[in-house]
Formats: sequence, structure tokens, C-alpha cells
Amino acid sequence: MLRAVALAERAAGRTSPNPMVGCVIVKDGEVIGEGWHQGPGTPHAEPAALAEAGDAARGATAYVTLEPCNHYGNTPPCSEALIAAGVAEVVYAAADPNPLAAGGADRLRAAGIRVRHVLVPEADRLIRPWVHGLTASRPYVYAKLAMSLDGRTATKTGESKWITGPEARTHGHLLRQRTDAIIVGVETVLADDPGLDPRPEGVVPAPSLKIVMDSRLRTPAEAKLLSTPGDVLIFTTGTADWQAEDALREQGAEIIRIPSVNDRPSLSAALAHLKEIGCQSVMIEGGGTLLSSVFDDGLVDEVWAYIAPLILGGGRPAISGEGPDQLASAFTLADRQVEQLGTDLFIRGTLQRREEAVCSQAS
Amino acid sequence: MLRAVALAERAAGRTSPNPMVGCVIVKDGEVIGEGWHQGPGTPHAEPAALAEAGDAARGATAYVTLEPCNHYGNTPPCSEALIAAGVAEVVYAAADPNPLAAGGADRLRAAGIRVRHVLVPEADRLIRPWVHGLTASRPYVYAKLAMSLDGRTATKTGESKWITGPEARTHGHLLRQRTDAIIVGVETVLADDPGLDPRPEGVVPAPSLKIVMDSRLRTPAEAKLLSTPGDVLIFTTGTADWQAEDALREQGAEIIRIPSVNDRPSLSAALAHLKEIGCQSVMIEGGGTLLSSVFDDGLVDEVWAYIAPLILGGGRPAISGEGPDQLASAFTLADRQVEQLGTDLFIRGTLQRREEAVCSQAS
Repeated sequence: MLRAVALAERAAGRTSPNPMVGCVIVKDGEVIGEGWHQGPGTPHAEPAALAEAGDAARGATAYVTLEPCNHYGNTPPCSEALIAAGVAEVVYAAADPNPLAAGGADRLRAAGIRVRHVLVPEADRLIRPWVHGLTASRPYVYAKLAMSLDGRTATKTGESKWITGPEARTHGHLLRQRTDAIIVGVETVLADDPGLDPRPEGVVPAPSLKIVMDSRLRTPAEAKLLSTPGDVLIFTTGTADWQAEDALREQGAEIIRIPSVNDRPSLSAALAHLKEIGCQSVMIEGGGTLLSSVFDDGLVDEVWAYIAPLILGGGRPAISGEGPDQLASAFTLADRQVEQLGTDLFIRGTLQRREEAVCSQAS
Repeated sequence: MLRAVALAERAAGRTSPNPMVGCVIVKDGEVIGEGWHQGPGTPHAEPAALAEAGDAARGATAYVTLEPCNHYGNTPPCSEALIAAGVAEVVYAAADPNPLAAGGADRLRAAGIRVRHVLVPEADRLIRPWVHGLTASRPYVYAKLAMSLDGRTATKTGESKWITGPEARTHGHLLRQRTDAIIVGVETVLADDPGLDPRPEGVVPAPSLKIVMDSRLRTPAEAKLLSTPGDVLIFTTGTADWQAEDALREQGAEIIRIPSVNDRPSLSAALAHLKEIGCQSVMIEGGGTLLSSVFDDGLVDEVWAYIAPLILGGGRPAISGEGPDQLASAFTLADRQVEQLGTDLFIRGTLQRREEAVCSQAS
């Protein structure tokens, strides 16, 4: 099953609005077919794997990261494909929460196929943004933090290159590649002038969107992110300068004026718009003020934090807001993963208010 | 050897000004004697282990965390004790850097005993504060940080109980027990009123010293740390109020006026005094302002950081200073250990300026 997860991951960042799915067909202890969903309009993982297995699929076992679908969408139901191929057993990890497509397991059982459901956290993680997207009115939001042990992202003079090491930075690019948009605050554009290139390794994922939250359109026309690959979208407020808008449009940026909250473009409005244009997941890259707002508004679903073994003692905080009054309202990281990346630590987790986490433990 | 390290650890906080040392005597694959140094005036680890082994020590192998001493101090040389007992082999981890006592390995070899020197990081860590004390004019300084993932120790309203979990707090008490003094800034006394009890688990280590850095003697006479076990020493400046001094003396505190730097009692002067009165190691418990000063002054030798899987987004920073201008002047943690303690992470490391770390890697 972990092999199937790894296959699914190959299409990270390219399957939206579909989920990542992987499938491995095994017969007599040997892998006879592998497949993964490569994105909208391409085959699902199961037919792809069945195609590779050919006639040998008869009597084999199929391992799928997600319950096979049971409906006619762009492609016929995978349940029918598995039945037609004559597989003897289907093992799936995540249950399909999509009411439209669910029922695959029952359909297979009705056709006399042995069906097993196994719990694999890696497979659940794979589809989390997609599951979120089935019901939520905004994309799945990742917050990325890259900071010193004491939570700083730059010295007081603004030096930020590089706090984390090369392994952590490369790993961070994986996150860029798996999201549909990268969001930064204008302060970060002004301070660091990042390129936000979504394909720094030469990989070509789906074109990624670069987004700036910029209340007064202070993004300079010569900002680096305007010249790197990918589209640029700038959310601003109704009062922003029209000449600045024209200058940025000339550089190819799309400018969208949305309602403001505390003189800043509303994050909820921006996320709702991104959902409408098809973004399943977005990543907040920084800076501290923007991160503080998304946390305060309870809009973060998952944190990817890179912690360097450094003490700065001062400088720019990774998240620079006021935070809650009470510890009970702080966010706690659930389903945590901790990994060593070179000399840095990587901590990943989904977010819950601490009080809710305590309640859900008690219940 | 790791068993010998564990034995040595049993006397953590009680051996000052001597090092922690452990010894295991093995014969025919069986442990026949174990010993550890329990503090000044008590036997060294080797004689203690030899006493347990008795005559069986003849022909055995002795594993010692530190090169056996070769001089007459309070006790006769351990090298002679090992020779007299007739051991066939001595394996030691850390070499004795003390010129007065070194030469044990040579003495043993001269007596026909097989001697092996093995590198065991755990054994080196054991004697680090003691080695530091052989040459430095101040105690070995530990900085303890207990904070959220984003480097905060309290919410904006000051709620700090508890950011880390019970396992991390118990672990932090180990550090208190192994140091000769706990130091806090007066801001922490005023904000959190900590008891700083060095023996919260009912363990009775050597009486530990509680120290407050308090430029204007604002420590209240009813502060909790004045009523918990252990002596209290308050470092202040020449201009502090004399009536406040009298009131604190009445509560049993010792007040020492030392030179000031930026209107604060000089940390170097305080540490020099602590060295003079026999402190081999001290721990800075907080708060953020005091920690910032000790880091800025380059006075921290080792960091023990506890990181809770929480995002606060604001509130009190763990270290609240300005920090250096350049990343090259940040501190990097060497000889790192990372451990999971309940839901928290524990990161321990010794400190080096980053530029020096880079240089020492290059050389």
C-alpha cells in the first residue's frame, strides 16, 4: 500500500480538482501492474494499473489508496473496470467520502470480489486537501514556516538567506509543487523579493499561481515574482491606486479588488475566490503578518515547519501578531510527523484549536 | 560503557566540583562490580566498583567513563587501585583533561594492563561542565527554553501554564537537579512567581541556589521562591533601594550589589562571583529579556529546548532581544540530541557562533 501511496505522490500538484490516487496489482507475490492518477482527463489509478497488468489481472489482488469510485464521471466507474478484469481481491485504504462516487466497495462485494479496508495514515494524508474541498468553501490552506529554534525568520537587519539548510529548502519546494497557489504578503515582496518559482528543480507541474496580498498595491513593477514562471494574482482593496494597478497589469499581473477587513484585503474573500477558480489547496509562504492573520482567522489547515538549529535571540518573528488571550485558544498540531532534514527539523501537522483537541480527546 | 554513563548520571547535581564518573567491572561477560562517584569526600567510581567486585576483580575488565586519575587528592590515585586489584584491562571513554590528574592511562600501561580508549559522546557530555570549569572563569551556563513551535512562552495576557506537557516539565527538572544554581530575571518573578524548587520530585540533591537578577530590587518579599527549599541570592546594582534590600534579607535572601551594565547587574560579574563560591554550572530559566542578554553576551554554553506542538502566533517571545545583525553571528547548536517527550520535542545542543562553526567545519 505504501508503494501505491508513493505512486500517487508522483502526480502531486497536478491532479486538482481530483485526488491523488495510486494502485498496485499483485499476483503470486509479484507486482504485475502499477498506476496512478495523473490529473483531470487522464485515467484513474485502477484502469492505469489494470492496463499494465493486462490479462494477468485475472485472479490478482489490487491495492488502491482510495476506495474505487462507483460513478460515471469523465471515465467509467473503476469498480466496473476491476470487475471486468476479474481481480479476486481489492484492498483499499481511504474510504471515499464523496457521496457521488462512494459505494465502490459494496459494488465490488456484490460482484463476488473479496474486499478489505485497511487504515493507512499516509493514504489519508494524500487525499486530505481533496476531502476538504468536497465540502469547504475555501481551498485547503498550508502554512509554511522556516525559522530558527527561537521562531525567527530574519535578523533585525532583514538577513534571511539562509536560515534553513539546502535539504529543508528542497523539501519546501515539494510543498510548492503540490499546491495550486503560493500566497505571500506584500511585506515579504518588499523585504525579500522572492521569485516564488514553483518549479525550481526543473520539474514541470501544473502552472502554479503566485498570489500577493497587497492592500495598497505596493508590489514594485520590477518584483522578481512578476518575471518568474507562473501567473501572478494580486488581491487588493477598493482604495488602492489605479496607476499602480495599470503598471502591474502591464507586467502581466491580474489585480483583483476585494472587500477589506482592517484596511487589508479580506482573506476569506480571497480564499473564496481561489476556490471558485479551481484552487484545491494553497500555501501561505509568509511573512509574519500575513501568517498571523490566517492563524487568527482560523484559516490554516496544516502546518509545515522547518526549524534550523540556530538561536537568533531577536529579529523578525515567524508569526508576528498578538495571538490569543488564552492558551486554550492556541492551535495544536495533530497527526504530527517529525523528520530530520539535514541539520534542520521538519514538523508537519494538521491544526486544531487546543480546546477542541482536548474535547475530542475526552469524548 | 553506556551502563557506566547511566551509573555516573545517578549523582547528577551532587558531584560538583568533581565530575560525574561511572565504572563497571566485567568478568567472563558478567558484571561483577558497579560504582559511581557520589560527590566530594566519597570514593571515586573505580574504587567503589572494585569494592563491590572484591577478589573477583583479578583478571577482569574495568569500563570507566573518564580516564582513571593518577594523583593523590582526597583519595589515592584510581590507577593504583586498579593495578592493586589486578584487573587485566581498562577501557575508558573521556580522556582526563586535568593536567593535575592526567596520566592514568600511561601509568596503567606501564603496569602491564591492557588499556583502550573509546570515543563515547555520552561520556564526553557527562563531564562537559567540569571540563569547562577547569579553565573558565565562570560556570558552565545552560539556557532552558520551553516554548511553542513559533517560539512563544506565554500568551499576550501572560498565560504560560502549561505550554509544554508533563513529560517535558519533569525532564526540565532533571536539568535543575544537575546544576548548582537556577537563575531568573526579576520580570519572571513578577510575571509568573515561580517556586524554582530544585527537588520537585522529592529527590534530595545538593542544596541548590536560586538566583534573581534584579537591578532595582523589585522582587516582592512574598515571592514564592523565598519560601521554597534552597538558598536565594539576588544580584542587584549599587543604586537599588536599601529598604527593599532589608525587607528581602529578612526573608532570608542574600543580596549582592555588583557593577551594572546598561543599568542592569553585570552578568559576567554575577557569573564570576558564582564561580568563586563554587558553582560549576548554572541554568538560566528565563525570562526572555535575561535570555537575550546572556545570548548577546556570548555566555551560553548549552541549550535545552522544549518545543510544544502549538502555534500561538503572538505573545511573549522565548528570547526577546534584538539579536545579531548578521546570520553569521547567530548561534548554532552542535552535538545535537533530539528526543520526543510526550507530545513535545526536546532539542539539546552546545552553542557556537555560526561563523565559528563554519570555520571549524572547513578546517
